[in-house]
Amino acid sequence: MTTPEPIGRRRWAIAEGYIPPGGTHADDPRFESHETACLLNANDRDAHVTITIYFKDREPAGPYRVTVAARRTLHLRFNDLEDPESIPHDTDYSSVFESDLPIVVQHTRLDSRQAALALLSTIAYS
Amino acid sequence: MTTPEPIGRRRWAIAEGYIPPGGTHADDPRFESHETACLLNANDRDAHVTITIYFKDREPAGPYRVTVAARRTLHLRFNDLEDPESIPHDTDYSSVFESDLPIVVQHTRLDSRQAALALLSTIAYS
Amino acid sequence: MTTPEPIGRRRWAIAEGYIPPGGTHADDPRFESHETACLLNANDRDAHVTITIYFKDREPAGPYRVTVAARRTLHLRFNDLEDPESIPHDTDYSSVFESDLPIVVQHTRLDSRQAALALLSTIAYS
Amino acid sequence: MTTPEPIGRRRWAIAEGYIPPGGTHADDPRFESHETACLLNANDRDAHVTITIYFKDREPAGPYRVTVAARRTLHLRFNDLEDPESIPHDTDYSSVFESDLPIVVQHTRLDSRQAALALLSTIAYS
Repeated sequence: MTTPEPIGRRRWAIAEGYIPPGGTHADDPRFESHETACLLNANDRDAHVTITIYFKDREPAGPYRVTVAARRTLHLRFNDLEDPESIPHDTDYSSVFESDLPIVVQHTRLDSRQAALALLSTIAYS
Repeated sequence: MTTPEPIGRRRWAIAEGYIPPGGTHADDPRFESHETACLLNANDRDAHVTITIYFKDREPAGPYRVTVAARRTLHLRFNDLEDPESIPHDTDYSSVFESDLPIVVQHTRLDSRQAALALLSTIAYS
Repeated sequence: MTTPEPIGRRRWAIAEGYIPPGGTHADDPRFESHETACLLNANDRDAHVTITIYFKDREPAGPYRVTVAARRTLHLRFNDLEDPESIPHDTDYSSVFESDLPIVVQHTRLDSRQAALALLSTIAYS
Repeated sequence: MTTPEPIGRRRWAIAEGYIPPGGTHADDPRFESHETACLLNANDRDAHVTITIYFKDREPAGPYRVTVAARRTLHLRFNDLEDPESIPHDTDYSSVFESDLPIVVQHTRLDSRQAALALLSTIAYS
């Protein structure tokens, strides 16, 4: 399977970011409130991605570094970013992704603070 | 009814993909958890589309082949893709669509794992 | 208030379309299941928009004609389109908007088939 | 942390706007029904943004003026816009953002009129 031209862009931004504080399904990680950036690397080489997190009232955090392997997708939970620091819950943030290869980024949130799940998703800005 | 110039692009990507495992309304297919790619072909000729599915930890699946007839829309459920292989449930994936004519692709999910439905939709990346 | 350059595009497509059949709040039109195209005309002249509806298994319907007044927004419910024909409920469709002036189109659905509302929204393709 | 080239655009539009009238969680501002524009300014200088609100049946309101500090994100609730006038609830509107520096704008709504939250989000048009 070959991808003759790479699909995507090298820089993406998600202006909306918010990890809800806990949820009603905290015993099941699939239902835990979370915020995800889905990164698709359709290239035949690994993509090295640097993430910067912007806040309302402090300097940005980062850079966070993730690798998306060749011909793979990475559904990255912001909850899991820990180095150089965790992203606080119940806090507004934005994120910028810079990659050395074209990738595609989509933003999804599952909010399980209530018994009824709430979902949102949107393509990031590129 | 004529469309003087075709609307759309020939390649699209949906970075976020996930088919929830079952649901609370499994007896009614309209409420069954599903993930859909809506493909619009506003051309006066059939569009031939090849779909590749990317995963986290294995090589891509596909190519899947679908035809969108001239002046028609196809609301494709990923659940229904079976050749060359089914897409596993409860697994993260991404998808890339390549068409021989310009089309428009939109991504929608209905999550019925809870009594309250959750919906998301976003235009794909092109 | 002046808008030196018009914002938007002249052609838009919404690949995903579906009007749910009825709802649990049918006595209150704000909670009735509906699908909306929001059209913004930031120009200083009226915009004349032609809408074509595409289906899975029949020729397209339309043209439907709406006018968005200068410096106004129109939140158009697909339920309200009646000339040349109504759009059937519980049926997949796509829509294409062609305007004589640049406009901005966004797609939103309220699904009230369950007690808990489900909402989706996405910018249309242009 | 430096951003060699600014990410974003200088003009954005959100065609869909609607602040639901009250909610079931009005005692907790996190759950109050609201509509948000998230503005990311990844530049090293403050961005000055002018917002115009368009309605169905009256002249536009504004200009509203907000500043997004350098390397900061602003999650702006339309409920909070008061000068030159408040935005009425239960009324359809659209918004246009004009900035002196490139920014990224995303649109999110939390609808808490029912016990189950409903969420939507989409990148704005640029």
